[in-house]
Amino acid sequence: MDVSIDFMRRIAQAAAAETLPRFRSQGAVANKEKGSFDPVTEADREAERAIRALISAEYPDHGILGEEHGSENISSRHVWVIDPIDGTRAFISGLPVWGTLVGLTVDGDAVAGMMAQPFTGELFYANASGSHYEGPGGPRKLSTRKTTNLAEATLFTTTPALFKGAARERYDQFEKQVQLARYGADCYAFAMIASGSVDIVADPGLKPYDIVALIPIIEKAGGIVTTFDGGPAEKGGDVLAAATPELHAAAMAALRG
Amino acid sequence: MDVSIDFMRRIAQAAAAETLPRFRSQGAVANKEKGSFDPVTEADREAERAIRALISAEYPDHGILGEEHGSENISSRHVWVIDPIDGTRAFISGLPVWGTLVGLTVDGDAVAGMMAQPFTGELFYANASGSHYEGPGGPRKLSTRKTTNLAEATLFTTTPALFKGAARERYDQFEKQVQLARYGADCYAFAMIASGSVDIVADPGLKPYDIVALIPIIEKAGGIVTTFDGGPAEKGGDVLAAATPELHAAAMAALRG
Repeated sequence: MDVSIDFMRRIAQAAAAETLPRFRSQGAVANKEKGSFDPVTEADREAERAIRALISAEYPDHGILGEEHGSENISSRHVWVIDPIDGTRAFISGLPVWGTLVGLTVDGDAVAGMMAQPFTGELFYANASGSHYEGPGGPRKLSTRKTTNLAEATLFTTTPALFKGAARERYDQFEKQVQLARYGADCYAFAMIASGSVDIVADPGLKPYDIVALIPIIEKAGGIVTTFDGGPAEKGGDVLAAATPELHAAAMAALRG
Repeated sequence: MDVSIDFMRRIAQAAAAETLPRFRSQGAVANKEKGSFDPVTEADREAERAIRALISAEYPDHGILGEEHGSENISSRHVWVIDPIDGTRAFISGLPVWGTLVGLTVDGDAVAGMMAQPFTGELFYANASGSHYEGPGGPRKLSTRKTTNLAEATLFTTTPALFKGAARERYDQFEKQVQLARYGADCYAFAMIASGSVDIVADPGLKPYDIVALIPIIEKAGGIVTTFDGGPAEKGGDVLAAATPELHAAAMAALRG
């Protein structure tokens, strides 16, 4: 089966209806008491509810795994994996670099996915037809940059603090070898690999819903996504994404020591 | 004198015509040779050239201080201060959190300013009428969040590595007292103070063109911008911006030890 772009657009719109009105609405609730209204939590929950409703209506036999509302029927061959707001710290801070992630796995392989940023009006998506972008600047096919050397690479990670002990030492050495290292962009950094503006993302401790949607977007744009030891990334873990096979190999060697 | 919103919109449009076509165009030039075409440098230079042309035509007696093309006539009472692309690392990485900064000082005081983000279509500006936003979600008056305690505050800094020695120790202690600390948002983080989504930005070693435009935007929205020792921030230096006077005092005490 393939996932139509029309269906992904419907998902993006349904999620945006829940997230966008709550984005930058925190000012009014800065001094909220514990347990009262929390815009990002509400946006997360309501967006996932809306996405699950669309998937269940269209594909009633498929399984769903979501960050907020758990799993149902995940022994199905087809499982949808949802993170309604990836990058909640960006959302809380008013920065438009969070995204709504929805991916589809078939027999455990990520075959289609979307990342939507409703404030900028961007949609990054991949299905059998390849990896695509819609948004400001007009629609285009996504293609990674052909960077092969660490010395020319832009690297993102959530924060070096996630690397512990010997892994931190290796990360610090790795970071010194790249041209530019930046912290904290979540799904947006992965989308920028597919878009040709970022070369490497190395992120330890991801959950499946942090990465499944992004795997086909990057791979069908020419990039590679695996765990740090080169295995499939669909189950999350320590995830390494790179723009080219050569760069991925160099990054993996640096991170494994 | 006051600066009209119409004039600020014209500046934003002229800058966008130079920056936007070069944003995310790096893919084609990843393996550029030294000295050849560099999109972010070109965008920086051409945008500043366009902005200076508008200012010189409208206010021929005023001085101009720009990041790219130096200073002219800065002994004038009126001096415009320009950073055509603040956040070049975000620009290079494809993230829409850079901005075009243009501010006006009169006798050294920042009295008007604008921060434009052309990809998102946002304009944050302040003149005698107050501090305002135009962009997605519609126009509105800017107002800081009424956060008074560090424990409820969201903090941004470019990177803790900019704090050296004892200042770094104080910064690390300071960071532990806030609710959320994030790195690397440049002008966008300052704009988010005015917008009510961020509470504190502490950034050492700023140049005048990094901060002049942002001072009136934050101050007229209810916030405070000074150096770490409480002096005027128009000449740059170690700059502390906060959403409220109480929070500013608490942050300044923590940073000064």
